[in-house]
Amino acid sequence: MKRELLDIPTVELDEDKNVMRIIDQTLLPGETKVIELKTAQEIWDAIYLLKVRGAPAIGVAAGYGIYILACEIADEITSGVSTVSEQVADANAAPEQVAEGFYAQYKEKSDYLNSARPTAVNLSWALKRMDGVCRQVLDEAAGSKADPAAMMKAVTDRLRAEARTIHTEDIETCRKIGEYGLSLIKPGDGILTHCNAGQLATSKYGTATAPMYLAHEKGYGLHIYCDETRPLLQGARLTAHELAAAGMDVTLQCDNMAASLMKQGKINAIFVGCDRMAANGDFANKIGTLGVATIAARYKVPFYVCVPSSSVDMNTKDGSGIVIEQRPDTEVTEMWYEKRMAPEGIKVYNPAFDVTDHDLVTAVITERGIARAPFDESLKKLMNAED
Amino acid sequence: MKRELLDIPTVELDEDKNVMRIIDQTLLPGETKVIELKTAQEIWDAIYLLKVRGAPAIGVAAGYGIYILACEIADEITSGVSTVSEQVADANAAPEQVAEGFYAQYKEKSDYLNSARPTAVNLSWALKRMDGVCRQVLDEAAGSKADPAAMMKAVTDRLRAEARTIHTEDIETCRKIGEYGLSLIKPGDGILTHCNAGQLATSKYGTATAPMYLAHEKGYGLHIYCDETRPLLQGARLTAHELAAAGMDVTLQCDNMAASLMKQGKINAIFVGCDRMAANGDFANKIGTLGVATIAARYKVPFYVCVPSSSVDMNTKDGSGIVIEQRPDTEVTEMWYEKRMAPEGIKVYNPAFDVTDHDLVTAVITERGIARAPFDESLKKLMNAED
Repeated sequence: MKRELLDIPTVELDEDKNVMRIIDQTLLPGETKVIELKTAQEIWDAIYLLKVRGAPAIGVAAGYGIYILACEIADEITSGVSTVSEQVADANAAPEQVAEGFYAQYKEKSDYLNSARPTAVNLSWALKRMDGVCRQVLDEAAGSKADPAAMMKAVTDRLRAEARTIHTEDIETCRKIGEYGLSLIKPGDGILTHCNAGQLATSKYGTATAPMYLAHEKGYGLHIYCDETRPLLQGARLTAHELAAAGMDVTLQCDNMAASLMKQGKINAIFVGCDRMAANGDFANKIGTLGVATIAARYKVPFYVCVPSSSVDMNTKDGSGIVIEQRPDTEVTEMWYEKRMAPEGIKVYNPAFDVTDHDLVTAVITERGIARAPFDESLKKLMNAED
Repeated sequence: MKRELLDIPTVELDEDKNVMRIIDQTLLPGETKVIELKTAQEIWDAIYLLKVRGAPAIGVAAGYGIYILACEIADEITSGVSTVSEQVADANAAPEQVAEGFYAQYKEKSDYLNSARPTAVNLSWALKRMDGVCRQVLDEAAGSKADPAAMMKAVTDRLRAEARTIHTEDIETCRKIGEYGLSLIKPGDGILTHCNAGQLATSKYGTATAPMYLAHEKGYGLHIYCDETRPLLQGARLTAHELAAAGMDVTLQCDNMAASLMKQGKINAIFVGCDRMAANGDFANKIGTLGVATIAARYKVPFYVCVPSSSVDMNTKDGSGIVIEQRPDTEVTEMWYEKRMAPEGIKVYNPAFDVTDHDLVTAVITERGIARAPFDESLKKLMNAED
């Protein structure tokens, strides 16, 4: 187990080189490789191919990503070599023209990044938040007749600061989720989790794993059970890896073995992450979560969803409004295998997520507190509360 | 898709060479290879390593297997070269001595084969049935003072006949299960199955797949959904393969995607096989079956267990009495993968089966008819009925 895994940031910005660095999670656990992302294509690919994944980490990557791309647009404008919008490269252009020229390109890049994955709300949430800052600074700078260089400096400075804020807020959010979650478990508990809502899915602590990290610091002696999480095996490759690296007692099982564990009474609580929660508590998370929740209900195992308020989408009424990403067949039939393990030409059903109905949820743990049924009321209260 | 797959017997006896031939199912779907088994070690390994698997097929293989080993013992006795029990190789030995000498070796081989896998009752069921025939013939032959050669011929002739009967009964049993199962589905239905209780698990038709084969012959246009069935992927490698080879409309999904299909209303019925059913209807089947049944109950999808009466163990009161086989960690962490897909040294939970409680079962389909709750009564009635 490589202890140092936990010392490498999942996502970080290198301001000097103006690149983002991520752990390429598709290579874990065999290889811990940090890669640099700079172009829009590289960033989009890293999100689409799950080199960086997990709703909160995607949010952080989106913030840094659009900042890096904004710098590129700003550089072109400042140096008068903008190839995309020639008029804004004119040093005599009116401030409004410069602002709109910049924004048109910025918006295009932002929309492109936003198209990488549809289900996790954090991608669009982070880009929307960055967009708000961008618009505000541009309007202010244009209003004060700033010259192009000053305007570009102002907008990139503010975007960098906002992206850094998204990053530091994520750490704080996870820590708070961990503290609330800790109040729901006791020493010696058996805890089951699905997929990876761990440090590798966030900036630190993870969401679903945050209570486990804090409990481990306090010497709770938990027994952690990780679903391997087909098809991409994030539970085996990432969660089992990072929790074992932290020194916890970890057991790995195939997804279809969780029911057997629960029936035997080995699981005292289940913690899972969340890619998007609707206003009524229905939520999308990694495919298989619905099954785990259904089985937990039969065996009366408390089922907790750990969700930063940034993943709660009050504009989506219920789970039926959440778009579910379908992924390539080859993830099921070929990926990871020495040889193809399914007949040629077979049809494949490969949704990346499912939607778990709120009636299966014992409690929703956010950085603002714990919500219980009726979730439409408790979530509204939490989301309207000040941080 | 190789149509010819369905024309190769899962298990067959070659009387001339005195070997058993099986399709090595660990190589499917990439390679369709028939291998020969002759020694006790080869037969034990083939069962343990799942080269031949599925409760009914294991029963047939056990019958042929112990017959082949009995021939070997008989040959040694007849030719006077028995190395294990010298006294019985003596041509002047009393008939009782020969019978007991033969039986001691026979029993040892039978116990050895029986140790290959603990959960499927058909292994011990077939060996017990063969044992009964063996004892009877030996007692008769000893009583009539048969000479060693005549005694050995009588016992091997009867064992071969019994093994062949087990085989032909299996085909007839599956066909009848198919007919009863067919009465529970309608054209256009979506049918989900888990693992492989198909032709490859039996001699023909399969158990869970028998209604599908018969429906396909009648042009029902079913939509079959196969759980891939981790860790050994029997659903992907075997079920999807054989049903597609038969020309059915087949979709493959990871085990953790079944809940999503049921929630969407795509599944009208579930058919699974059974490795051992207790007297109250609790039953062991491939790991993951319990989860499928639990989810089916939530979405009110009829859940049918297809089980030859040979797999109903009236001596086991309920599911708690069924021994569950634990299998090697590497099946989860390494097998099929190009590189190890779990951290080194991680603990693994890898039971081959789970036990589904009878309250989750809609109906039990046997070759003698369909049993419904209360199962303790309906199963007793069926098991006491004449074939």
